Amino acid sequence: METLLLNPAAVEESAQLPAVVDAVEAAFAAYARGDATMPAKSYIDLPQYDGDFRSMPAFMDTGEWDGAGVKWVNSHPSNPDDHGLPTVMGTMIYSDPETAVPLAIMDGTTLTMKRTGAAAAVATDHLAVEDATTLGLVGAGVQAHAQLDAIATVRDIETVVVADKDSDAVEAFRADAADEFDVREGSIADAVGCDVVSTTTPVREPIVPREAVGEHTHINAMGADAEGKHELADEILLDAKLVIDDHGQCTHSGEINVPYAAGTLTDDDIHAELGDVVVGEASGRTDEDGITVFDSTGLAIQDVASAHVVYEYARDHDVGESMALVGTDL
Amino acid sequence: METLLLNPAAVEESAQLPAVVDAVEAAFAAYARGDATMPAKSYIDLPQYDGDFRSMPAFMDTGEWDGAGVKWVNSHPSNPDDHGLPTVMGTMIYSDPETAVPLAIMDGTTLTMKRTGAAAAVATDHLAVEDATTLGLVGAGVQAHAQLDAIATVRDIETVVVADKDSDAVEAFRADAADEFDVREGSIADAVGCDVVSTTTPVREPIVPREAVGEHTHINAMGADAEGKHELADEILLDAKLVIDDHGQCTHSGEINVPYAAGTLTDDDIHAELGDVVVGEASGRTDEDGITVFDSTGLAIQDVASAHVVYEYARDHDVGESMALVGTDL
Repeated sequence: METLLLNPAAVEESAQLPAVVDAVEAAFAAYARGDATMPAKSYIDLPQYDGDFRSMPAFMDTGEWDGAGVKWVNSHPSNPDDHGLPTVMGTMIYSDPETAVPLAIMDGTTLTMKRTGAAAAVATDHLAVEDATTLGLVGAGVQAHAQLDAIATVRDIETVVVADKDSDAVEAFRADAADEFDVREGSIADAVGCDVVSTTTPVREPIVPREAVGEHTHINAMGADAEGKHELADEILLDAKLVIDDHGQCTHSGEINVPYAAGTLTDDDIHAELGDVVVGEASGRTDEDGITVFDSTGLAIQDVASAHVVYEYARDHDVGESMALVGTDL
Repeated sequence: METLLLNPAAVEESAQLPAVVDAVEAAFAAYARGDATMPAKSYIDLPQYDGDFRSMPAFMDTGEWDGAGVKWVNSHPSNPDDHGLPTVMGTMIYSDPETAVPLAIMDGTTLTMKRTGAAAAVATDHLAVEDATTLGLVGAGVQAHAQLDAIATVRDIETVVVADKDSDAVEAFRADAADEFDVREGSIADAVGCDVVSTTTPVREPIVPREAVGEHTHINAMGADAEGKHELADEILLDAKLVIDDHGQCTHSGEINVPYAAGTLTDDDIHAELGDVVVGEASGRTDEDGITVFDSTGLAIQDVASAHVVYEYARDHDVGESMALVGTDL
């Protein structure tokens, strides 16, 4: 029994769009229907190394296919300075639920980038105005690229406004995306006036003010991933139709965690989980809606869904290496 | 950054004894001292496939070295008949806690076999009579071999009495071990009269009767790994100095789970966890002790400790293949 081994380049090649977006949408639907199992993330805190590990197991059945797996991922903020290594690295084991054979082991860092972009695209598809053509990006890092790539599969994005305090990052972004899009550097206010916005910064004090946001703008709030982090002024969240990926994760560590802990924002202010919108249990954008916000923390089912696409593409196109890693002798 | 990939043969070669036994003993000590982090196993039940997945993350710091990792393991009892595959397969990711680099990914099936034998050896070292020379094995499967190999590193075993309803399994065991040991086929009563006993069967009704057990016998009860399973008559557990690997796991799915749920056996009947014995917080065998029992369910820290030994040996002896599986670009 062979296991496919997929390094960053192999995952990059195999994480085809829009297939990953479709799979992640199917994952949210399966979760809403009760056809997914997703135990809470297990944390191992390592204060002695200023870091932590998380294990994220999940199973999902979309009706057309099912998949299972675990992502083992860390956050070590001192890694870049101390070791010349990324803050976050991930390893994903993707398994066949019927036999438990580990079908593939892949770079979870690239996978995380792709599945995070895909979640924003799913939310954008259900919450942004249909004729959206402008995308504002607050933060010009690697996730900004993933946001643009994925969102462009669900809306005809023509113009991209990029805000980042690092002008070099904006220039690098423009150099990469200028062939396909009209990319402009702008202020945060410029960016959040666009039809669709994705914020991808790690800030702890909100940097997006209420008054700058467009009247019918949809915002994907991607940056907050820990207690104490948030990017948007509370007033935006309170005025918006607010959709979250998962109640437990978002109230603990998502964009809403700070005002939720303070009692400024309550369950009454949350419209729905994204899965409920996907399956039609809750509304997406309607003519009455103004600002919409998607609070994304990242779910294990997104990893499994994206790994499914990556595995199938890699297998069918001879991407990656194959190895009998796990014993199958009876 | 390279990750070492270790298949079953590579793990077999690298899981050197007694190094694995020493590392597992250090793991139990770290756990007892509070220098290990071991979130509860996460289960994903798959009734549609008669199976389940478990993720087992852990970190431990022995004082001399530390390690972290996750084992992704399943139990699919229909696999042999339906797919010609083993019931249990495992994949282990072993990581450096300081940087979170995945140092090795290895066959978790072989690793599980080794670390389970090692736990029995640690318990035997602390609980069996010093001059033990006879080992009784109830069940002659793959785990029986691991028990003999590991226990022989802590006691001078000369004679092995093997009981299994499958005579072919006994014969295969004898063929394998006869060079080093005096191996005899016997009844269960013959086997459990030995100085040290390991039971490794999946039975749900006890098969070891109280009266057959030797006066100063130490029993490693390895077989029970799920609710409803037990191998030893309740009277053995109640008469013995009873040591467990972990209170939560043993009362849920270990040898003691059935009488514990029935209230026949209570916390008052449990002497200690093995880690407390290893660090000297609780006594091992004393001159006053008769029967001793170790209830082993298998802990994630055993996997991390064994993976540490496997990784270091493989790295130092060029075992396995190396691959830049996970991205380390900043």
